[in-house]
Amino acid sequence: MKEYQKTTMNPQAEELNQIIRQKSPALYEMLSERGKNIFFPKKGILGQTAEAKGTRINATIGAAIEDDGTPMRLETIASKINLDPSLVFPYAPSFGRPDLRARWKEMIYEKSPSLGKTEISLPVVTNALTHGISMAGYLFADAGDEVIVPDLFWGNYTLTLTNGCGANMVKFNLFKNGKFDLEAFEAKLNEGSPGKRILVLNFPNNPTGYTPSQKEINGIIEVMGEAAENGNKIVCIIDDAYFGLIYEEGIAQESIFAPLANLHENVLALKLDGSTKEDYVWGFRVGFMTFAIKGGDAELYSALESKTAGAIRGNISNAANISQSLMFAAYSSPEYAAQKKMKFEIMKKRFEAVKEALKEEKY
Amino acid sequence: MKEYQKTTMNPQAEELNQIIRQKSPALYEMLSERGKNIFFPKKGILGQTAEAKGTRINATIGAAIEDDGTPMRLETIASKINLDPSLVFPYAPSFGRPDLRARWKEMIYEKSPSLGKTEISLPVVTNALTHGISMAGYLFADAGDEVIVPDLFWGNYTLTLTNGCGANMVKFNLFKNGKFDLEAFEAKLNEGSPGKRILVLNFPNNPTGYTPSQKEINGIIEVMGEAAENGNKIVCIIDDAYFGLIYEEGIAQESIFAPLANLHENVLALKLDGSTKEDYVWGFRVGFMTFAIKGGDAELYSALESKTAGAIRGNISNAANISQSLMFAAYSSPEYAAQKKMKFEIMKKRFEAVKEALKEEKY
Repeated sequence: MKEYQKTTMNPQAEELNQIIRQKSPALYEMLSERGKNIFFPKKGILGQTAEAKGTRINATIGAAIEDDGTPMRLETIASKINLDPSLVFPYAPSFGRPDLRARWKEMIYEKSPSLGKTEISLPVVTNALTHGISMAGYLFADAGDEVIVPDLFWGNYTLTLTNGCGANMVKFNLFKNGKFDLEAFEAKLNEGSPGKRILVLNFPNNPTGYTPSQKEINGIIEVMGEAAENGNKIVCIIDDAYFGLIYEEGIAQESIFAPLANLHENVLALKLDGSTKEDYVWGFRVGFMTFAIKGGDAELYSALESKTAGAIRGNISNAANISQSLMFAAYSSPEYAAQKKMKFEIMKKRFEAVKEALKEEKY
Repeated sequence: MKEYQKTTMNPQAEELNQIIRQKSPALYEMLSERGKNIFFPKKGILGQTAEAKGTRINATIGAAIEDDGTPMRLETIASKINLDPSLVFPYAPSFGRPDLRARWKEMIYEKSPSLGKTEISLPVVTNALTHGISMAGYLFADAGDEVIVPDLFWGNYTLTLTNGCGANMVKFNLFKNGKFDLEAFEAKLNEGSPGKRILVLNFPNNPTGYTPSQKEINGIIEVMGEAAENGNKIVCIIDDAYFGLIYEEGIAQESIFAPLANLHENVLALKLDGSTKEDYVWGFRVGFMTFAIKGGDAELYSALESKTAGAIRGNISNAANISQSLMFAAYSSPEYAAQKKMKFEIMKKRFEAVKEALKEEKY
């Protein structure tokens, strides 16, 4: 990519930047040029539609309606979906469905007891995990920036961050003597003068399946806290694609998002997760981006959410409403927990069978 | 964006570039740096999965299955969808579902009788129209490139092409005396030395609703043919979001894609369209990118499709399978045509009522 043209910044972007600079100067420094310039247009049709929802007369456009006020639709399509058409046919907001965002936020707290009352953003809905990586790159990685990854990492980071954003992947050694190589991690994080760092952590790790023990997590957090204290501004992209797919004792059950969320004013924790693998809906494309930084409050997070939704608006407009509504219905269903547990047990049994088989001499 | 780093090009990208350079040197010149560097990874898990489909033993990963071989799924979700789970829960390919791509291609020919036997690419599925614009920007627009648009254009082009890709919008005057301002269009297209041009045409036009008459279309085509003959290499992005929403006589019924598809070796016609507004499924997020250039053949188009799928792979991985399957089912349904016609008549009546009302003195 050639040099990003310095044009006049849109006042709506400047408004968000002022909030971010005031609340968290470190976070402002972490933003890419694209991240600084992006905003969610309040004045456009979608902005007007968002404002008109809840008013008595909604004369904004977007999607046509039947004479009875329900969304216009073809019966041959509607007959295949057992959900209210209003949950399926109209656009979802670029931010994602508010009901799903609120529920997923509750679920993050439920899955991360050690978060306690730490304030985090509302999740912004993405077209699943890859899209989260891509939008994280948009907001934080300029062409030529380095992104720190373990030497064993998901190949699609290259297409997303290098091909897509022009960033360079720099690697640290992941394993030493069968453990997390904390020294290699520390050395890479502190290489060169203190400054902006973009880091991707992915546990369980694709492709190895590795998840750190609680002790290893503590070591990582300590190293990151020291690096932040030394003046590094760290964007930590947490790829939680495989969250919950853990079938062994003694390894960390919570996402590393929890201890990072409140670690340091110089550490932005950006959790990327989603329904995809946690709920066996690979083809639905429902993911989330959730931000946390020490001292972050609703106003700061709202500015970040607006920038994220703006980046999404200028990339895919919004993610599938039908998929979001199906997931919200599932998360609200009294049957959900038991059904999920049943699938977990099946997967765990398979894991144990493979583990037994691998003990045989021939492997 | 800073300068795109010149790193070693991936051999899989180089393979596609060789095909494109050999078949159409002009088209190769149209590609952006990102467009030149992108490819769809054949060696990755998704590549292996694609190759394994149809073999007797499929040991590749991607999505878990139940003991009976059907996709693993939660019943609380599956019970709300009257489609075979295999059409809903697994990933769709980054290219899009093959059945839907083939059907949409047939439908383009049906909607564009004047295409005749002109060869066009298979459509690649996008997360609807905005995503098509975004991926077109990825493939063809470098930061600093100019994109020619009419002075009345959809505001989201700015977020997509300027904020997203760093391109600059340059405008031509759309209307003169209530007609398409062909002189302004011609002047803008031929401004400066002949070279690469990126152009967006959008009929019916958002925000004005304007669609050219057949005579105006002929004028546009003539101007573009001459500009191409003068050595301009024109990427024409055709935003057909509102295709078919035409309720008046005397204006062009076909997309301008038809006359552009076979116009000149220096004109790439890139049709962006989708189910969104044509079939009243705004929230589904199903769109398509279809390429045509004079002399284009299956091998050239296949290379372009691979680059497009690679860009999608590194951005959202793939679009919602459930939405694609619902649309394929609709397009295969014997009820589809009649139901669509019924909705068209409702919309047309409303259009006529508004038109009558606007004749009243008070407006």
